[in-house]
Amino acid sequence: MSKQEETQSRVRVFALGGLGETGKNMYVVEVDEEMIVLDAGQMIPQDDMLGIDVVIPDISYLVQHKDRVKAIVLSHGHEDHTGALAYIIDKLQVPVYGSKLTIGLIEDDLKAKNPSDQTKLKVVSPGGNMKAGKIRVEFFRVNHSIPDCLGIAIQTPQGYVVYTGDFKIDQTPPDRKFSDIGRMTDYGKKGVLVLLSDSTNAEVPGTTPSEKDTEAGIKSMFREAEGRVIVSTYSSNVYRIQQVIDAANETKRKLAIVGDSMMKVIDISKRLNYLRVPKNLVISVDELSQYNTDEVAVLCTGSLGEPVSALHRMAKGSDRQLSILPKDTVIISASPSPSNEKSVGRVVDQLYKLGAEVVTKYPQVNVSGHASQEELMFMLNLMKPRHFMPIQGEFRMQFAHAQLAQTTGVHRDRIHIVDNGDVLMFEDKKAIKASKVPAGNVLIDGLGIGDVGNIVLRDRRLLSKDGILVVVVTLNKKTSEFVSGPDIISRGFVYVRESEELLEEAKQKVSDTLKTCMSDNVNEWSSLKSNVRDVLSRFLYDKTKRRPMILPIIMEV
Amino acid sequence: MSKQEETQSRVRVFALGGLGETGKNMYVVEVDEEMIVLDAGQMIPQDDMLGIDVVIPDISYLVQHKDRVKAIVLSHGHEDHTGALAYIIDKLQVPVYGSKLTIGLIEDDLKAKNPSDQTKLKVVSPGGNMKAGKIRVEFFRVNHSIPDCLGIAIQTPQGYVVYTGDFKIDQTPPDRKFSDIGRMTDYGKKGVLVLLSDSTNAEVPGTTPSEKDTEAGIKSMFREAEGRVIVSTYSSNVYRIQQVIDAANETKRKLAIVGDSMMKVIDISKRLNYLRVPKNLVISVDELSQYNTDEVAVLCTGSLGEPVSALHRMAKGSDRQLSILPKDTVIISASPSPSNEKSVGRVVDQLYKLGAEVVTKYPQVNVSGHASQEELMFMLNLMKPRHFMPIQGEFRMQFAHAQLAQTTGVHRDRIHIVDNGDVLMFEDKKAIKASKVPAGNVLIDGLGIGDVGNIVLRDRRLLSKDGILVVVVTLNKKTSEFVSGPDIISRGFVYVRESEELLEEAKQKVSDTLKTCMSDNVNEWSSLKSNVRDVLSRFLYDKTKRRPMILPIIMEV
Repeated sequence: MSKQEETQSRVRVFALGGLGETGKNMYVVEVDEEMIVLDAGQMIPQDDMLGIDVVIPDISYLVQHKDRVKAIVLSHGHEDHTGALAYIIDKLQVPVYGSKLTIGLIEDDLKAKNPSDQTKLKVVSPGGNMKAGKIRVEFFRVNHSIPDCLGIAIQTPQGYVVYTGDFKIDQTPPDRKFSDIGRMTDYGKKGVLVLLSDSTNAEVPGTTPSEKDTEAGIKSMFREAEGRVIVSTYSSNVYRIQQVIDAANETKRKLAIVGDSMMKVIDISKRLNYLRVPKNLVISVDELSQYNTDEVAVLCTGSLGEPVSALHRMAKGSDRQLSILPKDTVIISASPSPSNEKSVGRVVDQLYKLGAEVVTKYPQVNVSGHASQEELMFMLNLMKPRHFMPIQGEFRMQFAHAQLAQTTGVHRDRIHIVDNGDVLMFEDKKAIKASKVPAGNVLIDGLGIGDVGNIVLRDRRLLSKDGILVVVVTLNKKTSEFVSGPDIISRGFVYVRESEELLEEAKQKVSDTLKTCMSDNVNEWSSLKSNVRDVLSRFLYDKTKRRPMILPIIMEV
Repeated sequence: MSKQEETQSRVRVFALGGLGETGKNMYVVEVDEEMIVLDAGQMIPQDDMLGIDVVIPDISYLVQHKDRVKAIVLSHGHEDHTGALAYIIDKLQVPVYGSKLTIGLIEDDLKAKNPSDQTKLKVVSPGGNMKAGKIRVEFFRVNHSIPDCLGIAIQTPQGYVVYTGDFKIDQTPPDRKFSDIGRMTDYGKKGVLVLLSDSTNAEVPGTTPSEKDTEAGIKSMFREAEGRVIVSTYSSNVYRIQQVIDAANETKRKLAIVGDSMMKVIDISKRLNYLRVPKNLVISVDELSQYNTDEVAVLCTGSLGEPVSALHRMAKGSDRQLSILPKDTVIISASPSPSNEKSVGRVVDQLYKLGAEVVTKYPQVNVSGHASQEELMFMLNLMKPRHFMPIQGEFRMQFAHAQLAQTTGVHRDRIHIVDNGDVLMFEDKKAIKASKVPAGNVLIDGLGIGDVGNIVLRDRRLLSKDGILVVVVTLNKKTSEFVSGPDIISRGFVYVRESEELLEEAKQKVSDTLKTCMSDNVNEWSSLKSNVRDVLSRFLYDKTKRRPMILPIIMEV
């Protein structure tokens, strides 16, 4: 490649999600006029996003420049990297690339949510490559907690832009398919313009245990359990599912599978040969009662947002088919994130109370899928990137990762800790923090995509704190008389039967206020309403120190 | 004591809070007809207790048997052991006992909330004793993260009932006042009927680091910091406050104190000689700007519910007086509990983004105040209790503590893992799980104590999820005509401007439903309302997959 070409090219890299947060990973690489989107993930709503089901990235920049978007490339099949796809694909209509298992896992969901969609789903292989527009994209194998994960390298005139995806360096991957260290070394030799690498465990010293490490732990639990074994894990952790299947098989326990998503993943993985399920092993939940408790096991799942939802139902006694028995051994093979640690803790407590034994030990029954400090430095040393952009994870993790990069010799000025939407522009291999593209949260509530914004959320927060009072009155404006009301209806404020006196007083306040207004000839609706609201609000705050939402409805006849 | 007396006595022990949960500690010991209440704590509301400020124990059993309650005895001055007092004292009107610092810390709050209260507050000393009714109560010193903590031993004809309170065995307590191992040994010799011991860290191996361990860590941060040092800690951690004061003094930094509760605790502790504050060390926040950044430090606090609330305001830029500067060193010397880990994490992230260095290391700047496994076993071995009741903490911690007790030789049948309200009755030194007394949560919202119950909370949860739609219509029943409306007002459902069409359709549905009803002569109000609610609910769920609360208001003229 001539010096001429190199200097003319313009490479832009930015995130639409995944920086300073956990989830909704989406990174964009622009080479001159063409764009490649790396991953399209969803995120669990934060606590203050009341009533929201799922959060996805704001893709308005991509939609605006739709013609320039050439492909969406998926690194692996986890929802924080693929879950937004079904919501955005109809707006972009570009081909989607991923490994066989990844495409297998998203296919159904995509069709279910977009029945008329014509998106081309293309299977690519670790070690392979493809062209999207003029851009050459190469794939190399990495290890993680699901099979068939891809690192992605994008060729540009200034060098490779390399995206690790989620990874760890696993010396004993259960499928014996190893990280492609050779390829990584090659990129290091050919020249990496910028490395985008997974920061999730950048604060964790040492190396992450292997996926294989849980195998022995789970097997011994199955062997020692006096009663049933119930395992809860993420449905997308295909390695772990295999270990549970193997443990059940070896200890001669029949296995019942609970949960649609778990069934679906097992079906797909079996069909695509990522999972071996012995014949006659799996029974239905109804058949459990035909066996002794030490002859059976149960595999159940939760969602990203609630990793132990099935267990939660069983513990509460609200599952139709299954309840917890004393002497059950419950294995929770999923690390709760800070956002659901509390709810998981409560379920564990309830299980203890019911007499179950609960096992959550790390790494006996659960390991992280993300590289720790030694592995992260190894990746940096292999890739020898000119520039480094720590991605994926809270800012403090990005900072910790930046420290590691500096330790391995990346120059401080070429380490870029940026926020979602910050565009890093490379010209002549130099980086300029160029501009900003829109990058925010799009909230999904039921069928609505993005129709719940700040105002609606603010109202939900207000309502959740102290409830609402609706004040209804019908006025005859000519005679200034009340035709009906004032009535007060409250929800979520106080228990009405025990607060009749308070509400009677409140009614009196409203009626006094309205009379005063009308005799003062203040009779624009808006003034009447705001007067009622102010007086009532002050009165209630004095009496209760609460601030319910007040909704005055004044009808006129 | 004769065998005769012993067998006749009846000792009952139960918790009104503190079992299977973190907070609202309250334990009751009944000796024949007399009762002693141990601690009166509050708890942070759980996530689903929307709008609730504080949770306290249900004391209806105590109120019902008011004449038999002889004293409330406080183990130490933390809110999870004292915070309910101000809300319940007027209902019980019994003397309150505690160490000097404990009484000092609660006094003002008690008077502020109960101006006319005549409660006698009585200071007792570690090593001392007192009589409440016929019951002899003895006090022995334990270490924790606040000075002046008491273990409490209640003499009964069947042996001592010993309550450890919060404790750890600290070999280097900052005030050089040691746990009274001698007394503990004595109780072991005299005979402990039942030991109630702190389970908080029963899952943590080894021993808990000393309060002293943070001294060097904090000092070195003060020395190395290039800019300001900002320390956030619980205001009730008097030891930690002393270390911050000493570190500021030694490194020649002036210290500004932020937060009313911090000021209050410092004043009280200084007055009672639990804190030494050098002259000319403390400056006001306004004076900070008169010094270089490396000449000052700030000490700020949060609440039990939000341990870093002051930092949060600074990080958001919403504190009127202080904002975060790049090169600030922020020390967070408070372990977030699972219930606020997430919000603390978010503040930390924001601080990083603003260029501050954040230090949260354990045990360099923060240690636990609760005994780990080795110390818990030590306590069990000293006390040699006949019966054991692990208290304080989630059930899984109580279970872990029970395991430790078994290891030290307490017989399995004499270890009692019980729930709040379960009464353990001792007769002839044998335990019977007798009965149950009411023990639940009393929720405090503003000034209301217990007036928010399940119905109100359920409404708040519904409102928080999908908001509310108020449907208003005025009917002339004689002519079956609409006098006004139907109108729909929504809050927290959808952004109205973008959903006009949906709401227009909804109005039409309401109006169709009402017309059909009236022409079918269905004109009882309740039927009209439930018809409107059903039709609208189904319509909105079909269109949006949301279920807002629907409040039909039908006026009649």
